[in-house]
Amino acid sequence: MQKKPPQDEWLNRSLKLQRKLAENDIAGCLVSQNVGIYYFAGSMQTGYLFVPVEGEPTFYVRRSVVRAFRESAIRTVELNSFRNFGKQLATDYPALFSSPDQPPIIGADLDVMPAQLYLRLAEAIPQAKWKDASALLRGVRSVKSSYEIERISRAAAVVSTALDAGIAGLKEGMTELELMAIIENSLRSQGHIGLMRMRGYNQEIVTGVIAAGEAAAEPTYFDGPAGGRGLSPAAPQGVSLRSIGRNEPIIIDIGCCLDGYTIDQTRMAVVGELSPELQTAYEVAELIMRSSERLLRPGTTPEELYVQALELAEEAGLSDHFMGYGADQVKFLGHGIGLEIDEWPVLARGFREPLKPGMTLAIEPKFTFPGLGVVGIENTYLVTETGYRELTVSPEKIYKSQDS
Amino acid sequence: MQKKPPQDEWLNRSLKLQRKLAENDIAGCLVSQNVGIYYFAGSMQTGYLFVPVEGEPTFYVRRSVVRAFRESAIRTVELNSFRNFGKQLATDYPALFSSPDQPPIIGADLDVMPAQLYLRLAEAIPQAKWKDASALLRGVRSVKSSYEIERISRAAAVVSTALDAGIAGLKEGMTELELMAIIENSLRSQGHIGLMRMRGYNQEIVTGVIAAGEAAAEPTYFDGPAGGRGLSPAAPQGVSLRSIGRNEPIIIDIGCCLDGYTIDQTRMAVVGELSPELQTAYEVAELIMRSSERLLRPGTTPEELYVQALELAEEAGLSDHFMGYGADQVKFLGHGIGLEIDEWPVLARGFREPLKPGMTLAIEPKFTFPGLGVVGIENTYLVTETGYRELTVSPEKIYKSQDS
Repeated sequence: MQKKPPQDEWLNRSLKLQRKLAENDIAGCLVSQNVGIYYFAGSMQTGYLFVPVEGEPTFYVRRSVVRAFRESAIRTVELNSFRNFGKQLATDYPALFSSPDQPPIIGADLDVMPAQLYLRLAEAIPQAKWKDASALLRGVRSVKSSYEIERISRAAAVVSTALDAGIAGLKEGMTELELMAIIENSLRSQGHIGLMRMRGYNQEIVTGVIAAGEAAAEPTYFDGPAGGRGLSPAAPQGVSLRSIGRNEPIIIDIGCCLDGYTIDQTRMAVVGELSPELQTAYEVAELIMRSSERLLRPGTTPEELYVQALELAEEAGLSDHFMGYGADQVKFLGHGIGLEIDEWPVLARGFREPLKPGMTLAIEPKFTFPGLGVVGIENTYLVTETGYRELTVSPEKIYKSQDS
Repeated sequence: MQKKPPQDEWLNRSLKLQRKLAENDIAGCLVSQNVGIYYFAGSMQTGYLFVPVEGEPTFYVRRSVVRAFRESAIRTVELNSFRNFGKQLATDYPALFSSPDQPPIIGADLDVMPAQLYLRLAEAIPQAKWKDASALLRGVRSVKSSYEIERISRAAAVVSTALDAGIAGLKEGMTELELMAIIENSLRSQGHIGLMRMRGYNQEIVTGVIAAGEAAAEPTYFDGPAGGRGLSPAAPQGVSLRSIGRNEPIIIDIGCCLDGYTIDQTRMAVVGELSPELQTAYEVAELIMRSSERLLRPGTTPEELYVQALELAEEAGLSDHFMGYGADQVKFLGHGIGLEIDEWPVLARGFREPLKPGMTLAIEPKFTFPGLGVVGIENTYLVTETGYRELTVSPEKIYKSQDS
């Protein structure tokens, strides 16, 4: 169906984690989440993956064993029984689990693993001392291989085609949902797996947000600058049944997931013309994007990018409107992207580790005007050895409907 | 957008939980998951919901406070700070948290709450002794109100229309993905929120599975009898790019989520005719459905329904093929359904609590033939005072394409 990644791809991923485990005096790392397992094993079947600080990782599979054997690129065995998982690990990794006086420190993806499972694992593997390894895992995943970058680029091409399909169908009076249905149909027909994975607890995303006028500016629980009104309190983000009016800003913040990898892109559209106020704010978003690009290279910190954007928004007199409005502002300019849409680094205060070549970042300066709408732009970039390469391919402009 | 539920709807939900808390000597229950919060508060904004064993529940909101105030049907306040959440709870519920010698037992939804959050909550609310309340919460939600049943029925009508659209477009040689794109476009245009929520860790579903011939019979990690081949190892379930051939069984196991509530339905289709072997197995699935319906009433246990189905499969000589094949068989006949697609009760061994009026169940006898495909059927039912009412509305038959 698609090109198989080279064998050393998988080896390199584990090696990167093993270096971090060694630096942090962690004896091994247990990965329980489907996306994490796929990252290290090339298979997303149900089970647990164990990466020792040294030596060969193992994928312990519960279901489907047949399929995991076929897909997995690493050592793969059947999980004997959950209750005896501790014994199976001790047999496979005697050096780590041999000393009863010195329990090995085992890291795990505790940011996603349910507490119930954590408590059961602590019983099933009583020899271990558990530690949250979420930050290490997110750090490893933040730097992409060329295989991964190629996949993100393919997703970018799919989103661009879908945007064009949407713009071709955009008409005054259609609902946000109707416009999204056109775009999603294009995404799905091109191989979008139907969902975009998010790591954050309780965060959901389907294909993004299309929101027009004041519906775009409504505050949401969603950890982003423009969540959208949504279809009901039970789906309180994304598209609504509101009709798209003339001269309203339409924010089209969409992505897809192709062969596991996601892309994120925002473009503005309008039937008619934007008001001068919104047009100006849009131009400030473009200015922030250009200024971000100038800093986008190894050595710059994510925090610097965010702080620069805050300063530019302030200079433009738009601080209150930047990345949401008032109490509902989010405190970032962008985010890492890959197998999940909310990867590291976050372009936010506190992220002071310099950017590295291979990082993929969605940068999304946006301005919210309650009652009027949201304007902004979002591109996904690859950090290269000397600067950046843009992965999103849709031309940067305000898209006009043929109705305009 | 839709009829608001009556005020006593919310009161009744908390009262049901409070009765269970009292029976189990639990002082209160903290709900962290978005779906759980929506169930008790009518809002899905980010925060924590606390239901004391007696008295008024509170929704502590982090984001968006504005929106939660607008949507929530219960007492709603802003969460002061996560670190001081224990103090805020103690101020609001002094009777529960007043005695330093006797820490109150606080239940929580530990089956979904990430371990990292659980460990942080234990620090932020050090006065509490924590207990897994997942089973209580799932029990409360298993019995639906008439408001909820009406929503599930509306979702059933949407799925039926979408199936008809798919059948109208079904052609020999089209891919599973192409057929699914037609159906999903219909679902979305009718208001499907774009995803169906699942409670199980690492379980994902978009709108279900369409799988033809041997692709339907491939084993998957998915906790169901026919997961489908999927689009890649990074999306190893659901539709694939395989072309649909003549005389192959096409399983169309689809659902949607409307205003928060899901439906689940399976129908078979074919371009041409099924082989006699598969036709016979399909008829056994229908026989199991009719026999299940005869037992479907308050007092029957979920386990009985499963055991009866196993016996009927054995009588037909189809034990090895029932609900998956060989090692990849799943051990249930159906599942509760509501805000999530994998609700309680499960029609499986160990579920011995008798059915109650108001339970909604998807029953899905299916037979897997490696290399050939899957045949079966799935209806969603409401358990009534005296028996059942079917909620799914698509006629039960093998659907033929106009190509046939």
